[in-house]
Amino acid sequence: MKRDVFASTPSPPYYAVIFSSQRTEGERGYGEMAERMATLAARQPGFLGVESVRGADGFGITVSYWSDLESIAAWRADVEHLAAQDLGKREWYAHYELRVAKVERAYGKSSS
Amino acid sequence: MKRDVFASTPSPPYYAVIFSSQRTEGERGYGEMAERMATLAARQPGFLGVESVRGADGFGITVSYWSDLESIAAWRADVEHLAAQDLGKREWYAHYELRVAKVERAYGKSSS
Repeated sequence: MKRDVFASTPSPPYYAVIFSSQRTEGERGYGEMAERMATLAARQPGFLGVESVRGADGFGITVSYWSDLESIAAWRADVEHLAAQDLGKREWYAHYELRVAKVERAYGKSSS
Repeated sequence: MKRDVFASTPSPPYYAVIFSSQRTEGERGYGEMAERMATLAARQPGFLGVESVRGADGFGITVSYWSDLESIAAWRADVEHLAAQDLGKREWYAHYELRVAKVERAYGKSSS
């Protein structure tokens, strides 16, 4: 059974933004903003999908998929997203790593 | 505060293997094998690090980092790993997606 937690991406090549992060303690308005950013990102040109999970210890990985680097740059420079990035650095993330990668090959296990 | 859940990777370029998966119900020997594979992978030439998280709903993302495609191919063809991959398909994963990507740029938030 394939759940909609998986991104339905086209054949490579396309791009992945791998964001791994450690949340600070406390909610601090994070959930609402994360939802808003997910909605906004999905409306961006070039957005292909997203996969995201956070463990009970506050460590999480979100991978968003994009058709090209220009789309990633445009989303990164979005005004509302810039404000969220700033809050992320100051309030929500004790540490994070962001990697931009070009997906060259992809494989999957079919639904069963 | 930076926890050791983050991979300490060198400057790009290097490679990322993004493995997103939905676990089947039940343990089925998964934890023990996952630990064994993590140990084996870390010993492989070209292994740079790994970041991994699984949520309470059984959806997880593991990103392993490698110096080059040859190292990824060698690990993929490891005999013990092949047996684990086979069990993964049959027993442990209801669905998965595996993407091989070349990391071109990386940013991080310093420890605080």
